[in-house]
Amino acid sequence: MPQEKLEKIRHSLAHLLAAAVLKLYPDTKITLGPAIEKGFYYDLDFSSHISEKDLPRIEKEMKKILPSWKEFSHKEVTEKEVREFFKDNPYKLELIDEIVSKGEKITFYTCGEFTDLCRGGHVENPSKEISPDAFKLDRIAGAYWRGDEKNKMLTRIYGLAFDTKNELDEYLKQKEEAEKRDHRKLGKELDLFTFSDLVGSGLPLFTPKGTILRERLDAFSQDLRISRGFQKVWIPHITKKDLYVKSGHWAKFGEELFLVKSQETKDELVIKPMNCPHHQQIYASKPRSYRDLPIRYIETTTVYRDEKAGELLGLSRVRSITQDDSHIFCTPEQIKEEYQTLVKIVKECYDKLGMKFRARLSLHDPNQKEKYLGEEKLWEKAEAILLEVVKENKLDYYLAAGEAAFYGPKIDFMITDAIGREWQLATPQLDFVQPDRFGLKYTDKDGAEKTPVMIHFALLGSLERFLSVYIEHTAGAFPFWLSPVQVKILPISENHIEYAKQINQKLKEGGIRSELDQSNETLGKKIRNVRMEKVPYWLVIGDQEKSSGMVKIESRDRGDLGSLELETLIKNLKREQSE
Amino acid sequence: MPQEKLEKIRHSLAHLLAAAVLKLYPDTKITLGPAIEKGFYYDLDFSSHISEKDLPRIEKEMKKILPSWKEFSHKEVTEKEVREFFKDNPYKLELIDEIVSKGEKITFYTCGEFTDLCRGGHVENPSKEISPDAFKLDRIAGAYWRGDEKNKMLTRIYGLAFDTKNELDEYLKQKEEAEKRDHRKLGKELDLFTFSDLVGSGLPLFTPKGTILRERLDAFSQDLRISRGFQKVWIPHITKKDLYVKSGHWAKFGEELFLVKSQETKDELVIKPMNCPHHQQIYASKPRSYRDLPIRYIETTTVYRDEKAGELLGLSRVRSITQDDSHIFCTPEQIKEEYQTLVKIVKECYDKLGMKFRARLSLHDPNQKEKYLGEEKLWEKAEAILLEVVKENKLDYYLAAGEAAFYGPKIDFMITDAIGREWQLATPQLDFVQPDRFGLKYTDKDGAEKTPVMIHFALLGSLERFLSVYIEHTAGAFPFWLSPVQVKILPISENHIEYAKQINQKLKEGGIRSELDQSNETLGKKIRNVRMEKVPYWLVIGDQEKSSGMVKIESRDRGDLGSLELETLIKNLKREQSE
Repeated sequence: MPQEKLEKIRHSLAHLLAAAVLKLYPDTKITLGPAIEKGFYYDLDFSSHISEKDLPRIEKEMKKILPSWKEFSHKEVTEKEVREFFKDNPYKLELIDEIVSKGEKITFYTCGEFTDLCRGGHVENPSKEISPDAFKLDRIAGAYWRGDEKNKMLTRIYGLAFDTKNELDEYLKQKEEAEKRDHRKLGKELDLFTFSDLVGSGLPLFTPKGTILRERLDAFSQDLRISRGFQKVWIPHITKKDLYVKSGHWAKFGEELFLVKSQETKDELVIKPMNCPHHQQIYASKPRSYRDLPIRYIETTTVYRDEKAGELLGLSRVRSITQDDSHIFCTPEQIKEEYQTLVKIVKECYDKLGMKFRARLSLHDPNQKEKYLGEEKLWEKAEAILLEVVKENKLDYYLAAGEAAFYGPKIDFMITDAIGREWQLATPQLDFVQPDRFGLKYTDKDGAEKTPVMIHFALLGSLERFLSVYIEHTAGAFPFWLSPVQVKILPISENHIEYAKQINQKLKEGGIRSELDQSNETLGKKIRNVRMEKVPYWLVIGDQEKSSGMVKIESRDRGDLGSLELETLIKNLKREQSE
Repeated sequence: MPQEKLEKIRHSLAHLLAAAVLKLYPDTKITLGPAIEKGFYYDLDFSSHISEKDLPRIEKEMKKILPSWKEFSHKEVTEKEVREFFKDNPYKLELIDEIVSKGEKITFYTCGEFTDLCRGGHVENPSKEISPDAFKLDRIAGAYWRGDEKNKMLTRIYGLAFDTKNELDEYLKQKEEAEKRDHRKLGKELDLFTFSDLVGSGLPLFTPKGTILRERLDAFSQDLRISRGFQKVWIPHITKKDLYVKSGHWAKFGEELFLVKSQETKDELVIKPMNCPHHQQIYASKPRSYRDLPIRYIETTTVYRDEKAGELLGLSRVRSITQDDSHIFCTPEQIKEEYQTLVKIVKECYDKLGMKFRARLSLHDPNQKEKYLGEEKLWEKAEAILLEVVKENKLDYYLAAGEAAFYGPKIDFMITDAIGREWQLATPQLDFVQPDRFGLKYTDKDGAEKTPVMIHFALLGSLERFLSVYIEHTAGAFPFWLSPVQVKILPISENHIEYAKQINQKLKEGGIRSELDQSNETLGKKIRNVRMEKVPYWLVIGDQEKSSGMVKIESRDRGDLGSLELETLIKNLKREQSE
């Protein structure tokens, strides 16, 4: 079904919702109800309190009314008529004022017994075109009239609506799955990170287990690049504001920066919201020759952005953002080869992480040239190169005009997770502008001084945001190489603890992240715990293991794997680790 | 010679300096001249410009006068007399005003023909007690009268003075050696770090080579602890001020903090100047049992301190301070065992780095109890434990009352560098106060809730400061395992570059940090460069190497090591790496 038709269904259902509410709660004041992604809502001013418990009753009423809605009719009405019709509804009167002040036509849309002030966009025959199984009232939220917190708080009822029952069911399943996988819930259950009121919102603290995840992911991300000639560098987290004035960021993003107040210097300092200007200062620290290029700097470092408190959410949206960042300085002739390598790196990375992706080629908007810095000719050349690269690598790609950064075009890799949601993670961006602003140079073969091109490239994006996606993608069941605890050792009773300790020690010496359960719980409880912690393997240690010198291994993903010698187990696990 | 006597010599020499200056430049206005560490100075208002070129002449005059200085005599004088004596010297008149306003006695000290307003503290007979070979005028600097930049800039002449010529010579040698080893000079020559005017002072940026040093040192420091049960954690660099108010740091160190101004939240934020309160928030994130203790968190992370611009110096004194920090939470009964382990770690660390140390046991000052938080009984108990540990480990130690932190006593490890200077680096500190302030708890065997003890422990201290010491300690000739470039490959001519590339590649694959010199320089120049870069090994690659398949290796420290097969070389280097 085309998107347009689906929007008409959703808009029609908003009307139906208002009609059902008026039937059940006649003195409700109806306000506005649009179609939205996945469904619709209507903002309503009820005279009495209603809660989510009331939704089934309203939904039932909608389904009762639907068969009688055979045609949406509309007519133009006079201001007087409409004011009379809505004389007890101050919200609609306010809307009418606006329509009148703009000199627009006033139209009534009627279906069944329900009439609303509306601009249209409905299905023709709801009773035929809307399947009663393909929509569902979803939830209730508070919403200020017209989004302004100075206004009255209304009740917003959200509904879901699709073309078919199947699509609705699938969406409900995905939603339920997403709730089960919520990284905030799993982060607590798996003891990965925590927030503290004394530290503040949007500033997660990572526990030992969460830190293993960060470190393993980071090492993985960096190794893919270091093996290809990237070199680590290090920069401090604060800087004089001057750096961002020169780079051009201050004018564009000044408001998103945390300002730093020094009591000892008059320098105006800020916390860095990005790393590119700093890495350029390292490039600029000595003369460079064409022989030195490409120079590729890599650094995983935390940037800070002054996000609105209301927008912070678990690890998805934080104020401390740790980027696995890198910057390449190269000649224009080297761009394509560098991009070929970056595409290989992205493929290797997301293959290993078990996530599919497609490429969004984010180009400039030719109708809004004033949004971008740099010459039009350079933009065209750069965009052509990127297009070549995505084609030659046979990537699943699409074009997106207007999505480029202000300093150059980019390839955004859009990653799909296990429940079908899409995320923008790796984004190699070309930059013709900043190296020029900072006066970066290299001496070319002919002795001439030239300006290098820069490529910005984060692979996972930020560790925090990537973790929020990846925890939900895996539902916390991380692959062996990433698991904070790889093997857990469960002694059957107190008598087996000493022997279990020896085994734990040997696994650790073999480079395996093992942990011993020393609690007083029963074996049944210990096994329930290890399953909840989603540890990839566990060993149950009892008399038999002690006397035979063998260990019995169970796998989270493959069940009982039988008994084997400890040395063999360690060898097998090490092989799995390096795969 | 006792320190007191040396100070008398130095103070007497300040008088002698002023006497010599007045002899040579009679219209100079003399002001103040004290004894200082290693010597003395006098601040003088010359009527004409003088420079360091004039120092030998002044020093010669001092030595000419010295034999005639047989006795320091002093007498009390009236205000009138002294004002008459110094009527042309506004500086001395200002000092007289002060003495008079305090109602103190006014005394003149005279030796030879020179008389000064002074409080005494000289040798009795300079001609006998001061060796003319054991002092030397050192340098000239500008100094505002009384250190206030609103006052006139005076000329300060510094002199060095010791008991014997030998001591002076030794100090001069150490000073010359220190200048050669200056980490700021070597940092530039070896391309380790850089500063940018756009980023700001005290904020170094580390190049790829400097970053290898940071990373190798950090991994070394962390591995010594991780193998003993420390677990990595991660915290953000900013926090609500509330955290430091609660910890007690805000009241004590509020002025040294960088304040952060958010445009989106009303929370008062700061950049963290330390990590302990944050790590305690991770401890506090879930209930803990005696079974879980000790819990040992480790994290290398950068803190920021608002140092005065005038105090910043290379990497020795920076605003971005990367601490190799760790915090242990344990029961009081576990303190001693934890300390035993920490002492072992410190020994292993500094042995491998080739630096000697002694331990300073920093205790509280029993006469200034108000400076410290926590019960007296706890302090005594803790100090007794630390004393036991230093004794049992047969450390070279000394006691320092008044050097404790406000929250507990500590062992400061004082490290001696190659030219005999002493530095305070590792400092395990006991803390009975903070865990209590943050309400940290564990459930003990008996079911009671108790407060854990905390031990703060940085091993290298900060990477920046440690590097400033270590670069000077090694004069930039780092041990093999730390060297940014471990092996350099020098092709004799253009014809040998291809083969040299293959060798470079094989070394890299073997895990060796090798680098290829692709410049057009002569072999002689290439060898001079590699020596200046202080690379531990280099291979010269010419026709013979190409045909024989052998490589000729030279060592920075051991000279020509002859030829051997590449595979053998790689094996040898890998062994050296892991030693």
